[in-house]
Amino acid sequence: MSDTDLPVLALTTGEPAGIGPELAVVMARDMPTSARVVAVGDPALLEDRARAVGCDVTVLALAPGETPPVPRAGVLPVWPVALRAPCRPGELEARNAAYVLETLGRAVAACQAGEAAGMVTAPLHKGVIIEAGHADFRGHTEYLRDACGVDEVVMMLATDPALHAMSSTWHGETALRVALATTHLPLREVGDAVTGPRLTRILRILDAELRHRFGVLSPRILVCGLNPHAGEGGHLGREELDVIIPTLEALRAEGLTLDGPLPADTLFTPHHLARADAVLAMYHDQGLPVLKYAGFGRAANITLGLPWVRTSVDHGTALDLAGCGSADPGSLITAVSLAIEMVQRGA
Amino acid sequence: MSDTDLPVLALTTGEPAGIGPELAVVMARDMPTSARVVAVGDPALLEDRARAVGCDVTVLALAPGETPPVPRAGVLPVWPVALRAPCRPGELEARNAAYVLETLGRAVAACQAGEAAGMVTAPLHKGVIIEAGHADFRGHTEYLRDACGVDEVVMMLATDPALHAMSSTWHGETALRVALATTHLPLREVGDAVTGPRLTRILRILDAELRHRFGVLSPRILVCGLNPHAGEGGHLGREELDVIIPTLEALRAEGLTLDGPLPADTLFTPHHLARADAVLAMYHDQGLPVLKYAGFGRAANITLGLPWVRTSVDHGTALDLAGCGSADPGSLITAVSLAIEMVQRGA
Repeated sequence: MSDTDLPVLALTTGEPAGIGPELAVVMARDMPTSARVVAVGDPALLEDRARAVGCDVTVLALAPGETPPVPRAGVLPVWPVALRAPCRPGELEARNAAYVLETLGRAVAACQAGEAAGMVTAPLHKGVIIEAGHADFRGHTEYLRDACGVDEVVMMLATDPALHAMSSTWHGETALRVALATTHLPLREVGDAVTGPRLTRILRILDAELRHRFGVLSPRILVCGLNPHAGEGGHLGREELDVIIPTLEALRAEGLTLDGPLPADTLFTPHHLARADAVLAMYHDQGLPVLKYAGFGRAANITLGLPWVRTSVDHGTALDLAGCGSADPGSLITAVSLAIEMVQRGA
Repeated sequence: MSDTDLPVLALTTGEPAGIGPELAVVMARDMPTSARVVAVGDPALLEDRARAVGCDVTVLALAPGETPPVPRAGVLPVWPVALRAPCRPGELEARNAAYVLETLGRAVAACQAGEAAGMVTAPLHKGVIIEAGHADFRGHTEYLRDACGVDEVVMMLATDPALHAMSSTWHGETALRVALATTHLPLREVGDAVTGPRLTRILRILDAELRHRFGVLSPRILVCGLNPHAGEGGHLGREELDVIIPTLEALRAEGLTLDGPLPADTLFTPHHLARADAVLAMYHDQGLPVLKYAGFGRAANITLGLPWVRTSVDHGTALDLAGCGSADPGSLITAVSLAIEMVQRGA
């Protein structure tokens, strides 16, 4: 592949008062050379933040939609979006919510126009966007689902495969991947949200994307129960018997390879994980504590089911760290690396 | 300490068709010498199972309540309880439910009489006990709470401290300990079960036992939120604002050191764990998947709040492995080691 064939990834720099802008410039110091990463944000903000954290990087403002040059360490190309109000590290400013949303819209438009093959997102701050008048804003994942007009997307977190080659933290040979059947819901609403149709949509997307974007020829997915001990035959809840088991049976008849429902506290052990390509947890805190324990600082969030690739850091805006230069770019590097792999596999 | 001063631990050998009996004999091959461990079960069953798995151990039947001799590798003293019906590995037999319950009752009586300083339990099979007519049997933990006439006990799992000295799996310097605010409940019932009075009882017990049994002078406990992102300021559920935060405030005024409520998926990372003596998860699948991932095969279950020490393996009866000789005694060894430490610290 010649340099000019390298895929373009749009990197939204997220909440301007958080650590997103400095992670983008820090990453650019040692930019991966297998993609043309172009930041989406305010060039002056990125320059300011680079100075604040002592990061020697040239911010290269492009014209909107202009193809970024071949990647070069120390150079960060930017599709410019202007801040709405001055921004100081750590201080949220509601007027800049529109800026954050514009960076997302710009990245979506670039993917739709074929100017980028995928997008990587730095963290935004949901609270300030809601406060600024977008009361129904739920987060990146839901925003992108609606922007793309698809019915369902799947939130999956994955650890960096390279992490495991070096570490005994992980018991298997490949990355740990945990997808969620439900995402950001109060715990009390989870039971009603785990329906047969939802599980069916989620598992079909997960199976298809593991084949298409992760090069897995015949994906094996481990599925958690909803209740402790996967309901223990009905003694600890009936959703496994009434919803999950019949749904998995029907999907097996379609050709999916699914193990479960398994108790969540025995599923994340070598016996089960060694044979699996991904785990489906029924809800947020059933799956993500393990994933983040295993892949701390080297995990990324992936949205499956969109027409293009989208990955994200696995952490928040860390307002308290912004501008200090101590923020760890590990998750952003993982997110970019995974996006590159996914674009190349899906090409 | 002279050999005759060594603490006595009663080891109930659990479901006779499961792996409990063979784990007891396999452990006795290399019996820890810092406690006098006495099995509670059928001596003929233990001999049979030792033969079946090729384990050269002498089963030494004592009189009921007789003080076991000083520990010797290859010798397993037993307080005899007779099977009610013949038992084959892997085949549940409802008539032996009464046998399992009698082994528990015998161990409780020995602890109450001061014949033992604590008890360690091999796994039982809840289903067959319920099937045999004990419809309200909920498990070891609840049985022991009722047998001791206490209002509340705390289920805590801990990894073997020695594990972490050898491994990079664990990010901190000591064992990982995860206690649960609620245990074996359908997920839909968790929200209502997390009440201020319950959290207060649980956290007081956890704090007191960390001091008394684990030698922690000033325990710091990390407390998970109930909802994802600990409710995100009320956007994802109100239990943190309405129940958890006020309860933690009141307990801090009593002198407890409590961090939280914290999002479960960021709590299990080095930044938080390095400063903590234990974690309180709000429910089973929020805390135990991480614990078992981190401590696979080297974790034990501990009941806090009883008048004596009780630890247990962290796994089930594994009927499919019984009699094969492939069952791993790691968790039982961890459970015995932890019980010894807890008895010695609390003496």
